[in-house]
Amino acid sequence: MHNSFLIGAGALFANGCTCDKTAASTESVCSKDKPTVLYLGDSALKGPGAYLTGIMSFHNIAFDYLPTREKFTDPLLNNNYSAIIMSDYPARNFSPAQLNAIVEKVRAGMGLLMIGGWTSFAGVNSEYTNTILSQILPVIMQQGDDRVNCYQPCLLEKASNHQIIDSLPFDRKPPAIGGFNRVTAKNDAATLLFARRFEAHRKAGVFKLTPFEKPDPLLVVGSYGKGRVTAFATDVAPHWVGGLVDWGDKTITAQAPGANTVEIGNWYAQLFANMINYTAGRG
Amino acid sequence: MHNSFLIGAGALFANGCTCDKTAASTESVCSKDKPTVLYLGDSALKGPGAYLTGIMSFHNIAFDYLPTREKFTDPLLNNNYSAIIMSDYPARNFSPAQLNAIVEKVRAGMGLLMIGGWTSFAGVNSEYTNTILSQILPVIMQQGDDRVNCYQPCLLEKASNHQIIDSLPFDRKPPAIGGFNRVTAKNDAATLLFARRFEAHRKAGVFKLTPFEKPDPLLVVGSYGKGRVTAFATDVAPHWVGGLVDWGDKTITAQAPGANTVEIGNWYAQLFANMINYTAGRG
Repeated sequence: MHNSFLIGAGALFANGCTCDKTAASTESVCSKDKPTVLYLGDSALKGPGAYLTGIMSFHNIAFDYLPTREKFTDPLLNNNYSAIIMSDYPARNFSPAQLNAIVEKVRAGMGLLMIGGWTSFAGVNSEYTNTILSQILPVIMQQGDDRVNCYQPCLLEKASNHQIIDSLPFDRKPPAIGGFNRVTAKNDAATLLFARRFEAHRKAGVFKLTPFEKPDPLLVVGSYGKGRVTAFATDVAPHWVGGLVDWGDKTITAQAPGANTVEIGNWYAQLFANMINYTAGRG
Repeated sequence: MHNSFLIGAGALFANGCTCDKTAASTESVCSKDKPTVLYLGDSALKGPGAYLTGIMSFHNIAFDYLPTREKFTDPLLNNNYSAIIMSDYPARNFSPAQLNAIVEKVRAGMGLLMIGGWTSFAGVNSEYTNTILSQILPVIMQQGDDRVNCYQPCLLEKASNHQIIDSLPFDRKPPAIGGFNRVTAKNDAATLLFARRFEAHRKAGVFKLTPFEKPDPLLVVGSYGKGRVTAFATDVAPHWVGGLVDWGDKTITAQAPGANTVEIGNWYAQLFANMINYTAGRG
């Protein structure tokens, strides 16, 4: 079951959904019910946006959606979102005043989740590094390109106990990812997952895999004022999501209205649902 | 440098390029010069098709392109392609007569390369299993769903020497993939690469990775009449391509006309260029 629907809108206005139906876009999603989270980014529902919208539809998380190509609009600030998710949503889509307003809303209790990608964190070119979000996210972003592509194995490694990850078999069945944004956890934040890369080679027909000495923070949580702030430094969608997208003992077929169908692992879906629900203040 | 260009065409006709410019599609590509290979599938140039078209543009392989949603047309049979590449191109896009004609062309010397995906080999539902291509491809396809998703590491393992792979560092730097079509090599075919899956777990803070006992054929070459037939049982594009897409000691930025830009590893690009050139009869 899901509780959002597709509108032909250039922006989305929840709590009554007075959406601008005259605008060109056909890919914003506006929740029929009281919205809980606002999801920004990941191109489009017929592209990478199908993953997280599919997960939220499957897990009954009400959401509004704005694709990458649409700028953030001031009326969105009037909606009482429990969390905003930014995932490959370019910083230039916000005005400085809008980012300031988001910071104030987090201070007052709204959650903020940033998910990795080429236009998340620093990304290709210091996307969010020099914005005010650097002051509230639980990680220190790099100057310049922070992208790490892993053509050899990179496994998620549990760093500490937390409600987001405790129900999931990270030790028994650690999943692989394909890349991540390199960030540093802030001193007052908690690193829940690391990315542990491996060097692999084969000699006399035998593979040898050796873990890198130093892992990278992958899932980091913190707070700013009354709001929870979460950084997940790999992508929810291919290619960086890697094997994680299939992580599970069951395959889920999920589809948000207007989005592509996705076939995903149940543990993968649960991880993101837990991340969103925690950041939104649940539990 | 590349030698193909974008046309607004529903089908493509090379050697003079008398393309049907009245048709709806804007994503067929028609070579200006004498075409060498015909690439069928992978959705679109603004999607997964950007990878192989980018590789061929970068490596100066002339090609015509037909996206997944466009049916194969008889005039294509009149073009003297040195090879046809089918990559996630649904079997229903061919008539039985067209598949018969392709088999005859391979017998006479044209190459055929099938690249893996959800509508390659058996795919989701016996896509090519019961077609005449099963008689000429170098692998035995499964009945029903042959898809293997790997949320834990899966490495490419060199099985024998061959011009497609000998210049590439498979032993020194084996790349990871995210999944593949499960096929069996035919007796008269040569398996060049296996997919070797690993079971990973973590105990007392230490990762243990154990290779599966039995690997799966991933790159298999054979011949039919005078033609070379090649099966590569994972995808050229995310998500199955996994880390392989970044395999290299240099990052290449490649773009075919009308396609998205892709950032890819130089060894990854070389592997596919070698595969295409070999199948097309070069070397």
